[in-house]
Amino acid sequence: MQVWRINTRTQEWTREPVPSTWEKLGGRGLVARILLDRMNPQAHPLGPGNLLILAPGLLVGHRLSSCDRISFGGKSPLTWGVKESNAGGRTGWALAALGIKALILEDQPSEPGWWVLHLSRQGVRFDPADDLVGLEAQPAADRLMARYGDHIALAVIGPAGERLWPTAGIQNLDQDGVASRIAARGGLGAVMGSKRVKAIVIDPEGAEMPPLADPTAFRQARKTYTQALMAHPQTRTYADYGTAAMVLFCNRLGGLPTRNFSSGQFEAAEAISGERLRELLLARPKAEPSHACMAGCAIRCSNVMTDSAGRLLVSPLEYETIAMMGSNLGLDDLDAIAQLNAVANQLGVDTIEIGVTLGVAAEGGLWSFGEAREAQRLMDEMRRGTLVGRLLGQGAVTVGRVLGVQRVPAVKGQSMPAYDPRAIKGTGVTYATSPQGADHTAGNTIRAKVDHLDPKVQAALSKKAQIAMAAYDTLGVCIFAGFGFAKVPETIPALLQARYGWNVPEDVFQRLGRETLRLERAFNRAAGFTPAHDRIPEWMTREPLPPLGAVFDVPEEDLDTLFDDLEPEPW
Amino acid sequence: MQVWRINTRTQEWTREPVPSTWEKLGGRGLVARILLDRMNPQAHPLGPGNLLILAPGLLVGHRLSSCDRISFGGKSPLTWGVKESNAGGRTGWALAALGIKALILEDQPSEPGWWVLHLSRQGVRFDPADDLVGLEAQPAADRLMARYGDHIALAVIGPAGERLWPTAGIQNLDQDGVASRIAARGGLGAVMGSKRVKAIVIDPEGAEMPPLADPTAFRQARKTYTQALMAHPQTRTYADYGTAAMVLFCNRLGGLPTRNFSSGQFEAAEAISGERLRELLLARPKAEPSHACMAGCAIRCSNVMTDSAGRLLVSPLEYETIAMMGSNLGLDDLDAIAQLNAVANQLGVDTIEIGVTLGVAAEGGLWSFGEAREAQRLMDEMRRGTLVGRLLGQGAVTVGRVLGVQRVPAVKGQSMPAYDPRAIKGTGVTYATSPQGADHTAGNTIRAKVDHLDPKVQAALSKKAQIAMAAYDTLGVCIFAGFGFAKVPETIPALLQARYGWNVPEDVFQRLGRETLRLERAFNRAAGFTPAHDRIPEWMTREPLPPLGAVFDVPEEDLDTLFDDLEPEPW
Repeated sequence: MQVWRINTRTQEWTREPVPSTWEKLGGRGLVARILLDRMNPQAHPLGPGNLLILAPGLLVGHRLSSCDRISFGGKSPLTWGVKESNAGGRTGWALAALGIKALILEDQPSEPGWWVLHLSRQGVRFDPADDLVGLEAQPAADRLMARYGDHIALAVIGPAGERLWPTAGIQNLDQDGVASRIAARGGLGAVMGSKRVKAIVIDPEGAEMPPLADPTAFRQARKTYTQALMAHPQTRTYADYGTAAMVLFCNRLGGLPTRNFSSGQFEAAEAISGERLRELLLARPKAEPSHACMAGCAIRCSNVMTDSAGRLLVSPLEYETIAMMGSNLGLDDLDAIAQLNAVANQLGVDTIEIGVTLGVAAEGGLWSFGEAREAQRLMDEMRRGTLVGRLLGQGAVTVGRVLGVQRVPAVKGQSMPAYDPRAIKGTGVTYATSPQGADHTAGNTIRAKVDHLDPKVQAALSKKAQIAMAAYDTLGVCIFAGFGFAKVPETIPALLQARYGWNVPEDVFQRLGRETLRLERAFNRAAGFTPAHDRIPEWMTREPLPPLGAVFDVPEEDLDTLFDDLEPEPW
Repeated sequence: MQVWRINTRTQEWTREPVPSTWEKLGGRGLVARILLDRMNPQAHPLGPGNLLILAPGLLVGHRLSSCDRISFGGKSPLTWGVKESNAGGRTGWALAALGIKALILEDQPSEPGWWVLHLSRQGVRFDPADDLVGLEAQPAADRLMARYGDHIALAVIGPAGERLWPTAGIQNLDQDGVASRIAARGGLGAVMGSKRVKAIVIDPEGAEMPPLADPTAFRQARKTYTQALMAHPQTRTYADYGTAAMVLFCNRLGGLPTRNFSSGQFEAAEAISGERLRELLLARPKAEPSHACMAGCAIRCSNVMTDSAGRLLVSPLEYETIAMMGSNLGLDDLDAIAQLNAVANQLGVDTIEIGVTLGVAAEGGLWSFGEAREAQRLMDEMRRGTLVGRLLGQGAVTVGRVLGVQRVPAVKGQSMPAYDPRAIKGTGVTYATSPQGADHTAGNTIRAKVDHLDPKVQAALSKKAQIAMAAYDTLGVCIFAGFGFAKVPETIPALLQARYGWNVPEDVFQRLGRETLRLERAFNRAAGFTPAHDRIPEWMTREPLPPLGAVFDVPEEDLDTLFDDLEPEPW
């Protein structure tokens, strides 16, 4: 495999061998390694010193179920720290098929103009993109597919990324050409916009799956893993209800963010539940309650939501969006939520960040909780790029400042997703200490069989989850594939060994996770982060969350010492 | 002397002896000591954990020329670091006369309602202030003087402080009852607002000057100092032109911020010069080109500016305001600048921060440089508290984010004053490394006889200036009094010894400065600051400043090692 480097100012590009210290990393871990090696951590995230990195995980390229994820990375314009955000869809596979271990976009243009980067076996081409500027995500993707063919993979930004909003993500295509698989968190869409790249087109024409050192062993390990995954009861739940199964689960635990985190239970939780969503999708023309975002996925947690006339609304409607744009806004109507989600997708923004932002805006008096039309009006302000829209596009922390709202649920500048850290305290430890900022995918503990309110047991739980997630993100493995791998952990070293021919240690999973976190923390330290930034907002340590009445009370010492022993052994 | 502590939630108050480690500090140094000793540096600056401190300097209370300054302090809602902001006027003297070494406001009310704190020899009284809420600074001060007498000293906030804007200052009265002496920088007005204190009234009725251990020695040292100050040529310049003499001086050095720091020379500098201002003031009815802000001041750098009908506009119009609301906004009319200044005074905001904010807003397309009426319209938006006004009230960094402007001249969240750090690089080192954020009063090097463009000599220069300013701010001594003390440095230990009867070391000035900086840096470190925050914005290291073409190129190593040897010896 190779590293492809593209200078967006000079439009020069190179294909280079993979440095030896990068070889045994992929995805999230490789992002951190590259950021540490190749940029000044103090650089402005929207200036020429930042990098935009695309790196498939170590296991990407083989249509392993739920293992073809693509990591996007750079310094976050939202947190100003290390950022990796990954997604399903086609892009991971296509890059791996072209033999690209990492794609690195450097510098930024000094002249006006927007570009499409076209990647193929022939190399890199800069195509003018001025006719694409201003297009929303799906129209842009449609035009690109019309121009370059339906078989391409994409990374594309909407207007939010063009406008350099730190809430902007990068979208890629699912199996059906829907630009819905978004690397949403932390504003990497703005980093792409700052390099004036509207889209990266990856044409895998003529490319092949990456070579295997031991095809037989690979097939064997794959079979063991897939069987374990298919046999797991959770796989069935996700196929039936998608992530929306979490609505009632989290509500029962008193951790469902409601009206800007002022309650952990929503009186209308049933109306936005996974069960209700499934009924609705089964009744709608062209809707699908279960859908795969990547070729070969056995879980199919995704869904396709249409309106009553069968027109596509969103694909998928996810739990985090239902919570942040539903209960968190006092909205109890799945159609209204899906409509907010649809606008967010077209703008190319993170629904979690924007959901929290709208919650803070309601608390600040900009609109009223529960009024779907007002929420839609604010989304339209964002769409039109009015001053109010531009303000909302900055995310919850900035909106909280301007409106004088102290009750902002964010860590390191990034909004909390759909698990109140006072009720699910292990996830709270993750929010506080993850180098990524508040992020459930960095280590959610909600499924652990513990008392989620007991402050004493949470640190160890979060640490374990964070190491595991850092490892999965480095492998390119979907969070839900973990249900399978957890049953047959020996398949991970087996797959790596069969793929690469390395001598892979049994505990490679632990090592990958620890190494990734160590690198990320080193980057953040150099960027100016300290233990003072590893904190849940003060008001959550003071304000009890109804109805459980819990505050976030995990000792600060637990947070400060969590990763004291990360040093991994090399392998 | 005593420490007066007031709990703004319980309305309990105490008069306590001064802890021994606080005794030999005052003003800025004492603020830092108290913040470190009595609050969690990670507390939210607008939450109950912050303190608002008023501390007269060590030499305050004796009508020494230019030595009765009052320090306000707390954790800054603008920088989220240590903050001290001092002012002339009556308040320092009045507190010292009541024997108050430090006034500490703790916690914040849990019930609605606003309060006046009334301090007198009888102690502390909470008077309802609901009729004062919403009043601008001068109307509020006028009503307070009508209620409590013309002889009172005050600390009062305008609407900006009530609205918790991080650009809000705290105003006190000059000799004439004008609420113009503002502790402007860093948002301490918002800290006062967060404790729902509209005003602190200090009634010195029956109080006396603090006792002197050796009155004869004190009188002798005072005489030597005053003579040295009066004999200094700079004293004459300030009496004639006020700080506005700096306009042409800084313009000649190519460091006069013009149109959001895009040039260091302003084509219309003559029109806003000190010379022009003096002519104008001499011609206006009731205007005064020279005016004292404190009783007994021999420098009289202040002025009184009226309109052509003799109505008071502002008192004074200062260089920093002329630059930040004049050349920095492309405005060449002193009356237009004074009108912007007047609105800022009524709102109770920092003219430096708001001047820079309007410059960033112009660059972001919100209005056009040079259009005074548009600038006035935006000030009116702030006055009315519209959404645009609330946005502007957050300061330049937030406005830059929302408008997508990267060219924001700020350090640690605080805007740069009227000396471009690319042309006056020593002052740039101060901006970068001062624990206060960008602040010329923390150590301006513009008067040093050096090549201000040579990056090699600036660190030592800034360090010396920062230590000196930290010492003056701890003594309660005006920056301009330094011209006198520099000629007769032995008068500083002499005055302290005669005042307090301590055995004062000869190098007390150095020790006070170093100790103050050491304490402030310790607070900031605990609050989460690192060397990564001691930086001039990246774009200023890249973008040459016309017409000199200089960038900020003082080596980062110089910045990082500047204060490595601060440890003072105790005395």
